[in-house]
Amino acid sequence: MKPPLVTLTTDFGTRDPYVAEMKGVLLTQGPADLRVLDLSHEIGAHDVTEAAIFLRASVPRFPSGTIHVAVIDPGVGGSRRPLAAHFQGQFLVGPDNGIFAFLFDGTEKIFELDAATAAPNGLSATFHGRDLFAPAAARLANGAKLSSLGKPASGAAHLPFPMVELEGDALHAQILHVDRFGNLITNVTRETLQGFLAMGNRSDAIFRVGTHQIHGLQNHYAESEKGKPLALIGSSDLLEIAVREGNAAEKLGARRGSRILVVRP
Amino acid sequence: MKPPLVTLTTDFGTRDPYVAEMKGVLLTQGPADLRVLDLSHEIGAHDVTEAAIFLRASVPRFPSGTIHVAVIDPGVGGSRRPLAAHFQGQFLVGPDNGIFAFLFDGTEKIFELDAATAAPNGLSATFHGRDLFAPAAARLANGAKLSSLGKPASGAAHLPFPMVELEGDALHAQILHVDRFGNLITNVTRETLQGFLAMGNRSDAIFRVGTHQIHGLQNHYAESEKGKPLALIGSSDLLEIAVREGNAAEKLGARRGSRILVVRP
Amino acid sequence: MKPPLVTLTTDFGTRDPYVAEMKGVLLTQGPADLRVLDLSHEIGAHDVTEAAIFLRASVPRFPSGTIHVAVIDPGVGGSRRPLAAHFQGQFLVGPDNGIFAFLFDGTEKIFELDAATAAPNGLSATFHGRDLFAPAAARLANGAKLSSLGKPASGAAHLPFPMVELEGDALHAQILHVDRFGNLITNVTRETLQGFLAMGNRSDAIFRVGTHQIHGLQNHYAESEKGKPLALIGSSDLLEIAVREGNAAEKLGARRGSRILVVRP
Repeated sequence: MKPPLVTLTTDFGTRDPYVAEMKGVLLTQGPADLRVLDLSHEIGAHDVTEAAIFLRASVPRFPSGTIHVAVIDPGVGGSRRPLAAHFQGQFLVGPDNGIFAFLFDGTEKIFELDAATAAPNGLSATFHGRDLFAPAAARLANGAKLSSLGKPASGAAHLPFPMVELEGDALHAQILHVDRFGNLITNVTRETLQGFLAMGNRSDAIFRVGTHQIHGLQNHYAESEKGKPLALIGSSDLLEIAVREGNAAEKLGARRGSRILVVRP
Repeated sequence: MKPPLVTLTTDFGTRDPYVAEMKGVLLTQGPADLRVLDLSHEIGAHDVTEAAIFLRASVPRFPSGTIHVAVIDPGVGGSRRPLAAHFQGQFLVGPDNGIFAFLFDGTEKIFELDAATAAPNGLSATFHGRDLFAPAAARLANGAKLSSLGKPASGAAHLPFPMVELEGDALHAQILHVDRFGNLITNVTRETLQGFLAMGNRSDAIFRVGTHQIHGLQNHYAESEKGKPLALIGSSDLLEIAVREGNAAEKLGARRGSRILVVRP
Repeated sequence: MKPPLVTLTTDFGTRDPYVAEMKGVLLTQGPADLRVLDLSHEIGAHDVTEAAIFLRASVPRFPSGTIHVAVIDPGVGGSRRPLAAHFQGQFLVGPDNGIFAFLFDGTEKIFELDAATAAPNGLSATFHGRDLFAPAAARLANGAKLSSLGKPASGAAHLPFPMVELEGDALHAQILHVDRFGNLITNVTRETLQGFLAMGNRSDAIFRVGTHQIHGLQNHYAESEKGKPLALIGSSDLLEIAVREGNAAEKLGARRGSRILVVRP
């Protein structure tokens, strides 16, 4: 019998006691052999979009039955619904503010947590991660059904994935995320790029970020010289601008939200 | 049978190998199914008071039998005693410098670790977390009794919880902690505030931080406008000054130790 | 039966999803009761030497059978070999770029991972931590033999441990690492220092960092006054310059690579 697994994703950092308090609740209310696993506590404070991008890349890697608790919750205590969902064999628990939006594809089953059921000990005003979401996850880990935690709901909060725009032989796109290494992850999927470049040639494509131009799409960091920018499909199947053993964000003066233009010959 | 659980709280960060070394010792000397859980490694360097506040909020959330190792140990190698304690069904292991002071209530049973017993392999001069506290925790996880690790001791180091002062219709208090979001956590407990305001009215109370005044005690962040400071009882049952989706510390120019005045009408 | 243990050491940080993706792969492909343990994700970006120093201190503390995955991999996608090794009863998995060089002593057995076997699902261009090293570790955790993952190889990448130089009564050495507390960890081993000072007297030894001189070798931080620099043998059996409850790097203006001179009388 597989010991249940609860993962945690928050914007709490670990200097404050908030993550520790959630872990204590999970281990107190969950099964004896529960495994609690940190995904990240370093999501930008209140940054729902960053959380959604993070979860889009991470959640699909986990095994069936995993319970993911994600608490990036600027609207705590307001009217946003508390949610638990079943999605492709896994469970997602957190506020209904869009953090799961880049995962959901219409096959998800969502439930609005009933605070009285999920948190029989009452709720603080400001910390539903500890008082509502962790107890709900503990119940799931104990084998409770989603339907025992609240009532079926529809229409999880939407968060629009930033779309690229095609204009003649130019693709207007943007930087979704800058990673620790300064790599620029864009909103251009592998499929979109392949479709767009099919009419041209991948070695002739031009990628323009600010005043910089990069020629050709590479396969590996190692195909470029050290210190020189290159374009490739990154590990999340998105177009990425990188500098081999360097920092593309610094080198190109780019950041999240910066524009990138792809031009085919 | 519940697999034993050891938690770690340190000021080591994780860039240095110190936490990893402690984990290795725990897993080498502890039982085969030991679970090791990070609470925090980001406590301010040598900041015993911050550690005490952190542990006060975190430890009570954990299940009976949990073994908490806390190593914020500026006096390592000096005369401070190494300690293991039994407190409300859980175990605490660490230096006797006040880190447990905000937890202890007189019911704790403390033991001074005997270095020769707890660390038969000898002690480094500078790293008792690895050489003394982790081995002691591993023994507890193996089922050893506290009394086998050292001799009963009395009087754990005291750390005065900063007291509020009542002066007529004013309560003089201070900021205990600034969290990652810039929320200002004060030393005014829910009980103290309720007792103080019982004679007045909570919606007429005034909270003064520096030159800023906040009117009324709220229940939720969401009751205030975005960007406006508010006062509420936070998740640790302490008065908290926050800015909805903003940073109160920046907005009010406050930090740990700053004064706060509560005035009743 | 001991649940298998995989540790992770990376330079990924945890704000990006990379560590979470590796954990997902390990838990999906590994055994049902796998324990995944963070050592560090805060190794300096692309800093192979820092990783090697970290692993030298950490790995030997772990129990036999532990599987360590270390991904500091600036050469990903290039010609560096992917490696799995057996070393003193434990397993090491990662790129062959020197990160294990300060551990290996000639008794290690190394294998070059065969990408087709270790990663039957194919490899991304930029993230072998997720696509090659985590799957290989999962197989080891499932009980696979090293020899089933690739072919025996020889000569793991070498990384020269910076040597000290003896010149008459002076030992020329350097700062290997500055820790979170500002302690300066040098490349002078306990053995080297004892051999060098045997002819002199440890209380007469002089340690020179920049324009500062420290007299005598101490045993504990507590032997020095607060704020005063001292020299001692640190917890990794290396000469260390520290300031009691202070920051030696700041006080002495030293950093990694700075020179230190030890003079015997």
